[in-house]
Amino acid sequence: MMLCTEIGLAQLEQELALALGPDAVLSSPADVLAYDGDAYPAARQAPALVTLPTCTEQVSTVVRLCNRYGTPFVPRGAGTGLSGGATPSPGSVVISLARMNRVLEVDPENRRAVVEAGCPNIAVSRAVEAYGLHYAPDPSSQTVCTIGGNIAENAGGPHTLKYGVTVNHVLGVTMVLADGSIVTAGGKADDPGAFDLVGVIVGSEGTFGIVTEATLRLTPLPQAVRTLLAIYDRVESCTSSVVAIVGAGVLPCALEMIDQTILLAIEDAFQMGFPGDARAVLTIELDGSEAGSAEEAAIAREVCLQHGAREVREAATPEERARLWLARKKGVGTTGRLASTIVTQDGAIPRSRLPDVLSGIAECAERHRIRVCNIFHAGDGNLHPCVLYDQADPDESARVHAFNEDVLRLCVEAGGTITGEHGVGIEKREAMRLMFSEPDLQLMHRLRETFDPEGLCNPGKMLPCP
Amino acid sequence: MMLCTEIGLAQLEQELALALGPDAVLSSPADVLAYDGDAYPAARQAPALVTLPTCTEQVSTVVRLCNRYGTPFVPRGAGTGLSGGATPSPGSVVISLARMNRVLEVDPENRRAVVEAGCPNIAVSRAVEAYGLHYAPDPSSQTVCTIGGNIAENAGGPHTLKYGVTVNHVLGVTMVLADGSIVTAGGKADDPGAFDLVGVIVGSEGTFGIVTEATLRLTPLPQAVRTLLAIYDRVESCTSSVVAIVGAGVLPCALEMIDQTILLAIEDAFQMGFPGDARAVLTIELDGSEAGSAEEAAIAREVCLQHGAREVREAATPEERARLWLARKKGVGTTGRLASTIVTQDGAIPRSRLPDVLSGIAECAERHRIRVCNIFHAGDGNLHPCVLYDQADPDESARVHAFNEDVLRLCVEAGGTITGEHGVGIEKREAMRLMFSEPDLQLMHRLRETFDPEGLCNPGKMLPCP
Repeated sequence: MMLCTEIGLAQLEQELALALGPDAVLSSPADVLAYDGDAYPAARQAPALVTLPTCTEQVSTVVRLCNRYGTPFVPRGAGTGLSGGATPSPGSVVISLARMNRVLEVDPENRRAVVEAGCPNIAVSRAVEAYGLHYAPDPSSQTVCTIGGNIAENAGGPHTLKYGVTVNHVLGVTMVLADGSIVTAGGKADDPGAFDLVGVIVGSEGTFGIVTEATLRLTPLPQAVRTLLAIYDRVESCTSSVVAIVGAGVLPCALEMIDQTILLAIEDAFQMGFPGDARAVLTIELDGSEAGSAEEAAIAREVCLQHGAREVREAATPEERARLWLARKKGVGTTGRLASTIVTQDGAIPRSRLPDVLSGIAECAERHRIRVCNIFHAGDGNLHPCVLYDQADPDESARVHAFNEDVLRLCVEAGGTITGEHGVGIEKREAMRLMFSEPDLQLMHRLRETFDPEGLCNPGKMLPCP
Repeated sequence: MMLCTEIGLAQLEQELALALGPDAVLSSPADVLAYDGDAYPAARQAPALVTLPTCTEQVSTVVRLCNRYGTPFVPRGAGTGLSGGATPSPGSVVISLARMNRVLEVDPENRRAVVEAGCPNIAVSRAVEAYGLHYAPDPSSQTVCTIGGNIAENAGGPHTLKYGVTVNHVLGVTMVLADGSIVTAGGKADDPGAFDLVGVIVGSEGTFGIVTEATLRLTPLPQAVRTLLAIYDRVESCTSSVVAIVGAGVLPCALEMIDQTILLAIEDAFQMGFPGDARAVLTIELDGSEAGSAEEAAIAREVCLQHGAREVREAATPEERARLWLARKKGVGTTGRLASTIVTQDGAIPRSRLPDVLSGIAECAERHRIRVCNIFHAGDGNLHPCVLYDQADPDESARVHAFNEDVLRLCVEAGGTITGEHGVGIEKREAMRLMFSEPDLQLMHRLRETFDPEGLCNPGKMLPCP
């Protein structure tokens, strides 16, 4: 292995262009600058080169060449990640999966689809909707984010309360290991195969190799869906409704909370008719059979009213339902009107701790003089405080940093985790120490070295420096 | 590390007795013989010693001492495994989790329980039923098998069709690694923590370390359950009903098939009133709300009749339902009346291939002149052909061996796996080559070495010899 000098880099570029074709290798400063990070704003680094392979074998070729030149490589989906997982390390080669975006196979009888890793999340559901099926995990970025990126981060979404996160929907993967060899894990059967590596590959943030294809579980579209909106004068009434609805034995497919700051921003953007004086709203979605979902909706409504909702509305038409979801999914985006920099935090706690942890976050924001608003997956205790600030202000940035750390500490102390679905990436490497002991972290390091002995595969992500 | 000579063994025994107390170490030939294997009949080996630790720290002590003496160690739950995963290797120390059988914590609000690894599966559900909750994975051996054993094998059960296998219900584990260090993986939150190792620990068959505690997800008891029994004159009508029920958008919580041979044995044992001339029956269980489950039951009934069921009965009382499940869960056991040796195979295939793979198995049995009957989780394509034979007959045993291999090949060729829920153990090490390529297997070996560099932790299981 030689060090990648400038001469080495030029040779690597030449060899890559020879193997993939010249249009599949980008090297001009303007071109590579577009790949300098993801949706985590605090880390930017242009790569040395960008490659655009079209098949698993080409990915393997890129990885083998990078190995020969001792050059790190970084897989990339749509770049919508929120923790810096796709931010290139210095001098690295980005391997974009953008040209591997096909749905390769749909098997409606067995409820499976085989897709390339660069396939957008929404494209899977679109390809199978004619069969009455969909791909259940639905991150807010689902119209652009890719299955490969979802696998890297073990992505969630509002409907994962009932249907689970990405790992519950990936049956098998094809992966290029850090040495360029191609392996498969899992399979197509409903039951996991012998020694199922899929569980550890999903969520490994691109540090174990590059997933190029995945076999996905498809889920029937429910016969009936009912979407309620409960409106509250007090945040605590809203959080205690969340605990009580699930406590009543109802498992909504989604249970999403939005606070007043974001409500007003959404109202400004979309004119939803939300009452401006509401302190919080709760979107409750029930699915299942016609009769079953009606029964559950009635229980949920009753529980909300008992816990202080001033009103519970129900979407009367599919269009009304779609508008409620538009508001939820674009909600974080509307906060762009409120500050120049937005960082969305991501911690998960046991549901019963919602009321006190949410109060704790508010106190914490006050202490650090930080503007925070909340829009999150309340049902599974997955908090997403949005911090509104100005990255150009170093004092405010330092306070945001301290606030974020305090929030993660609050989550861990409540028995939760430092990330529900956005991943560790660059952002939370050091916060791993809040959750894991030294032996835990050593095991993770050893495991990572097993997959990537040379340390070339998306280095500097997920684990704290030893 | 010294080799474990007889003197070494005596010293190890002494040190173990000193650390754990003399009643926690068994060494007499009669005592250790009781630990010579599990429910896989073809592999028996008495261990050198048996230990009965009472806490994680004691397990760690046993492992450290075994390391010092270079002695392999084998974790053991209730010994109900079907692939030889708990069969001791020669000269090994069995670490029985029998004394670590407590439910440590029940958190009904967050639907969690923390239990010791030796806790019987059924004890979890019993400890939480007052809260309207249960632990969903329900292997047929659930009255005795332990959570630790379930984790080792990633156990399933009839209700995993709707609720998933063990890995979907384990949120976190405490584990003693092969060097004696204690680590935790996962956590208590609904969403998986950062870099979630639980997914690869579940199903590692005790070769990655010894899980001593687990945080489990609890599931609400359904409001309503309806159990149907469809009776068929042709096996093909039964298998095609399975495909059609799921195809109609109904997801039963269980969909279990029993063929005529086993029906007659059950009838003999329990006098269920099954018609003696039926070629197959299908148990269909629907759960959910009162209204929703009634709607689904009506659809399932209609589909069964359309696909050739001659009759569809419904359990009218909880007692009737309990009797149907008794028949299913004890079904394999009743075949003990039919032959001196019973081996239950375990392969999983995509559901749509059920009709042709089941025919293929019947042909295969005829070719090898083997008596086979079927009782299995039809809904998730998890086949369990029961082979009836006499282990003392070498010719018949050889034919059974050849038959088993052909069945696994059929499953893999149909896009399935060599084990749905019983694990690889000793039984299917070589069959791993049917599913996985050389690079796949090399990765698994490396991964295992990461957890257990000295090769002392349940050696000789799960992976084929390199």
